[in-house]
Amino acid sequence: MSKTFEKLKPYLDKAMAFQTARSLFEWDEQTLAPLEAAEYTSKIVGTLSDEYFKSLINDKVRKLLKKLQEEKELDELTDHEKAIIKELNKIYEQLESIPPKEYRAYNELTSISSRKWVKAKKDNCFDDFAPYLQKIVDYKKKFANYRAKGTKNPYDVLLGDFEEGFGIKELDILFEKVKQEIIPLLKKVSEKATTIDKSYNYLDYDLDKQKEFCRYLSGYVGFDFNRGVIAESAHPFTLSLHNHDVRITNHIYSNNLESAMFSIIHESGHAIYEMSVDDAITQTLVGGGTSMGMHESQSRFFENMIGRSEFFWEPIYEKLVATYPKQLKDISLIHFIKGINKAAPSLIRTEADELSYPLHIIIRYEIEKMIFSGEITVAELPKIWNQKTMEYLGITPPTDSAGVLQDTHWSWGEFGYFPSYAIGTAISAQIYSHMKEIMPFDQYLKEGNLTPIREYLKDSIHKYGSTKTSKEILYNMTGEEFNADYYVNYLKDKYEKLFHLNK
Amino acid sequence: MSKTFEKLKPYLDKAMAFQTARSLFEWDEQTLAPLEAAEYTSKIVGTLSDEYFKSLINDKVRKLLKKLQEEKELDELTDHEKAIIKELNKIYEQLESIPPKEYRAYNELTSISSRKWVKAKKDNCFDDFAPYLQKIVDYKKKFANYRAKGTKNPYDVLLGDFEEGFGIKELDILFEKVKQEIIPLLKKVSEKATTIDKSYNYLDYDLDKQKEFCRYLSGYVGFDFNRGVIAESAHPFTLSLHNHDVRITNHIYSNNLESAMFSIIHESGHAIYEMSVDDAITQTLVGGGTSMGMHESQSRFFENMIGRSEFFWEPIYEKLVATYPKQLKDISLIHFIKGINKAAPSLIRTEADELSYPLHIIIRYEIEKMIFSGEITVAELPKIWNQKTMEYLGITPPTDSAGVLQDTHWSWGEFGYFPSYAIGTAISAQIYSHMKEIMPFDQYLKEGNLTPIREYLKDSIHKYGSTKTSKEILYNMTGEEFNADYYVNYLKDKYEKLFHLNK
Repeated sequence: MSKTFEKLKPYLDKAMAFQTARSLFEWDEQTLAPLEAAEYTSKIVGTLSDEYFKSLINDKVRKLLKKLQEEKELDELTDHEKAIIKELNKIYEQLESIPPKEYRAYNELTSISSRKWVKAKKDNCFDDFAPYLQKIVDYKKKFANYRAKGTKNPYDVLLGDFEEGFGIKELDILFEKVKQEIIPLLKKVSEKATTIDKSYNYLDYDLDKQKEFCRYLSGYVGFDFNRGVIAESAHPFTLSLHNHDVRITNHIYSNNLESAMFSIIHESGHAIYEMSVDDAITQTLVGGGTSMGMHESQSRFFENMIGRSEFFWEPIYEKLVATYPKQLKDISLIHFIKGINKAAPSLIRTEADELSYPLHIIIRYEIEKMIFSGEITVAELPKIWNQKTMEYLGITPPTDSAGVLQDTHWSWGEFGYFPSYAIGTAISAQIYSHMKEIMPFDQYLKEGNLTPIREYLKDSIHKYGSTKTSKEILYNMTGEEFNADYYVNYLKDKYEKLFHLNK
Repeated sequence: MSKTFEKLKPYLDKAMAFQTARSLFEWDEQTLAPLEAAEYTSKIVGTLSDEYFKSLINDKVRKLLKKLQEEKELDELTDHEKAIIKELNKIYEQLESIPPKEYRAYNELTSISSRKWVKAKKDNCFDDFAPYLQKIVDYKKKFANYRAKGTKNPYDVLLGDFEEGFGIKELDILFEKVKQEIIPLLKKVSEKATTIDKSYNYLDYDLDKQKEFCRYLSGYVGFDFNRGVIAESAHPFTLSLHNHDVRITNHIYSNNLESAMFSIIHESGHAIYEMSVDDAITQTLVGGGTSMGMHESQSRFFENMIGRSEFFWEPIYEKLVATYPKQLKDISLIHFIKGINKAAPSLIRTEADELSYPLHIIIRYEIEKMIFSGEITVAELPKIWNQKTMEYLGITPPTDSAGVLQDTHWSWGEFGYFPSYAIGTAISAQIYSHMKEIMPFDQYLKEGNLTPIREYLKDSIHKYGSTKTSKEILYNMTGEEFNADYYVNYLKDKYEKLFHLNK
């Protein structure tokens, strides 16, 4: 290890410890902590956050980091160390550009505005939330402009924070393609799909049995129970303390069979990514998945390419029927497969099917772009939201709560985040096409043998953590640059076959 | 707030945050964390311990602490602040003597060794645990000797950490009395008690129903579910993050009704203590119970003086029978009361009855004394353990898991801790005698109204946290010094009455 890096390491280790502790409190708050704890516990979490920043952002680290830019210093670093330094520079670039006073004021604002959003959504009153959202947008523009320094569109800066190498240019191409192909496809599919009776999915399903079956599914796709645990929370999520302790949650509904099953497969995909990061980089700044988009590509890959495939269910559908004989005895495997792939326009993004999902993202992307270009104001959001929902999905939200207020992201200042969901899904389709070429993918699923699939993902993606960007990983894996055609073609092929659209 | 104390406060707050984070990791490890997490997580815990240590023990704090010894500075402090300063001085005395590197290595060791103990106990293999225990003992001796500085027996140092004012001298007197009175009493009681058929207790009791009834019992005695949670672990324990988040665990056996019920009442006693600490001192150095012994006095008070009383069960026994009608329909209340107070020598401390319990403590006390005097080695522990169990209880453990490996304490480095259980029980008997004089204690139990009892304990003991010592609290409450006679007399009276020994 280089001497300069060695001096830096204690600061990094400390920061990781504080961050991990903060993560454990977050996990605990979402899954277990008693009702009245929050007020007192938030002091602890506040201190841990402060100390996290102080261990990374201080004069000693700044000096060491500057020294490590020198060529002879850089030469002494291993690839992992270089990746860590790159990451640390990114953190400095992001944080140091913002005057501390503004940063603090902004954090206070989001803490308030997220609460205001909860209330506004509950009361279906966008106007109560709008002034806070306006302030957030103003701050985000200001912060992005500090870093854009005139050379970049501020929205590009925000997009780049979530997905390096993806900006307005790349996304416009992706989303244009999706709009052209998916809007008419969705129309055709949803007409065909109305004939599929899915009432079986909404019968009464025992919670304990669901819990047990979800646990089984999670292990079946490769979640390692020696390195992770499952709990329950209001909204499913994945949280990694390090590669030997990765946690997922689920939310089980007694009147919906699919919901918990596909949530658990989705979160298992995220978890398998984090569990497969190399031991050498876990507990460092580059020890987690490389980007939001790449993470989402893995969860979607498990949820959709694997979990919604007929071949996946072939060996285990019998077990599902045996678990719920009363509800499923008359539902054939192919009926079930059509059921889990049934597609139709709907209002709520998180409940959308695979086919209509990207249209929800496009609505948000186009609106964010317009806000940051100054084309529209915050006050106009509900109107634009409803127009676009009508245009792309053919429906109009009956309330703002089911429309522009449905997602929490903007209340936390997360602009530029939504496109990652679509980028991830597009990446998963490209990976899927590649893997089907180089291995007997469907055969593995039929045999219930997911190990070669998981091993290949580990070796090509997971083990690298964030030492490589998603673009680098994708290119090294497939020999191609990111190409949105795979996504559109995947959806067309899949739905045309499943619902015999060409007959 | 005095200006000097104000300068000190950020250091104290930071230390509390790190300590609380460490506690949450401890809770998590015992109740939830996946098997393979320990090795990686122990690094985080190590860093948090290190930072805890650094925020309290440093030149700036040392200087402020020194300044606060001056009379005019002291005059400016509130009572709470004075108590915090006293506690901080104690920590300085305890920690300053230990080199930070050793302190950190020791904390990492105990995090691993506690897991090794779990496995060794499961595999009944003391040899797998012995090397870790040996290392812990070596560290404890070293640490104690740093502080004993030749003037004190190192074991006295450890005893004093758990109970100020109690050392080998005091404990030899207490335990001699107990040995003289209790060994013959236990013999008489266990002969009489053989006529009580307790087979009902070992029938099959549904785990979910037990869990539910234990939760009920916990709430019935006063555990506040808005400020605490219950989980399961190998060995029941209580852990407090602050007075609004106090957690207890239980261990439920399908073939033992009593075990989980009395564990939960016991842990609830600990939890009620922590939940009742004054808001003004929670999250400070004096925000927890004042000593191990006083803590144990409260858990024992709830478990034995309240929980094993006929009056306690009078209003709720019907509910218990209704929960398990098949198993309990022919068991009368008085039969049940004799059952839960049946005394006979047995192997497992945590399952021991109230009468034989102190003998289990004496075994551990005498062994710890011998280890720290160098009279015996860790390798000899199983042999000595079995010898002493034979001497005091008249039985020999068939396995080490049921013998020397039964308790988790030593795996956490907790030597000098066990005697606190006996001190606590003796205190609880003294408190009980006092409270029966000043309030209609039995009447409250009969009415199912534990509030006045709990309120009195809160006002006399709990709210003070550790701003007063257990000796001060006991004197202020009862007007008397600690007196072991109450304990011996309590046991004699109770068992003579219940089993008609004088007839």
